[in-house]
Amino acid sequence: MTTTTTELAHPAREELELSAVLHALSDPVRLSMVRFLATAPDERSCRSFDVPVTKSTCTHHFKVLREAGIIHQRQQGTARLNALREEDLEARFPGLLSTILQAAA
Amino acid sequence: MTTTTTELAHPAREELELSAVLHALSDPVRLSMVRFLATAPDERSCRSFDVPVTKSTCTHHFKVLREAGIIHQRQQGTARLNALREEDLEARFPGLLSTILQAAA
Repeated sequence: MTTTTTELAHPAREELELSAVLHALSDPVRLSMVRFLATAPDERSCRSFDVPVTKSTCTHHFKVLREAGIIHQRQQGTARLNALREEDLEARFPGLLSTILQAAA
Repeated sequence: MTTTTTELAHPAREELELSAVLHALSDPVRLSMVRFLATAPDERSCRSFDVPVTKSTCTHHFKVLREAGIIHQRQQGTARLNALREEDLEARFPGLLSTILQAAA
């Protein structure tokens, strides 16, 4: 497995599963990453996150978030850029993300 | 450990943690139990749940839900009665339970 592939797998909007979304957000570090992305004006690279974990753990957390359909990741040179899939989440599970972010605030 | 104790540990309302609540609800079987309790007019015993798991697995799931503060359990004779802690959850995380139940519907 390589981490430099430019094509990363993302579930389609209609494939998003509630259990996977809740599981992904049940980790405090992942939730803090999502909270950060929710306030970011644009895509953010892994290194821009101020979380108390190693780079490989950070990469793992982003993978869980991507596979749950919570974030979109794309490779740009050596950086992997992350963005929240707010519209997809809102369409699939109305109010869920905002309610969880509010509960975490 | 005995399962016939009449005093079961429950976290206080202010001790409820978002990560524990989301983790507990991220399991499809546990979420179906919570959905059932949300429509039940009163406390329900374990045996009244129609879930495709063994009794011991069922007991485990209820323990996770209780420890996360999602349900209240009390022993009555040989039966353990379960009820949703809707008021506590609503006070601690406004809108969270109803939004998740709606997403699961």
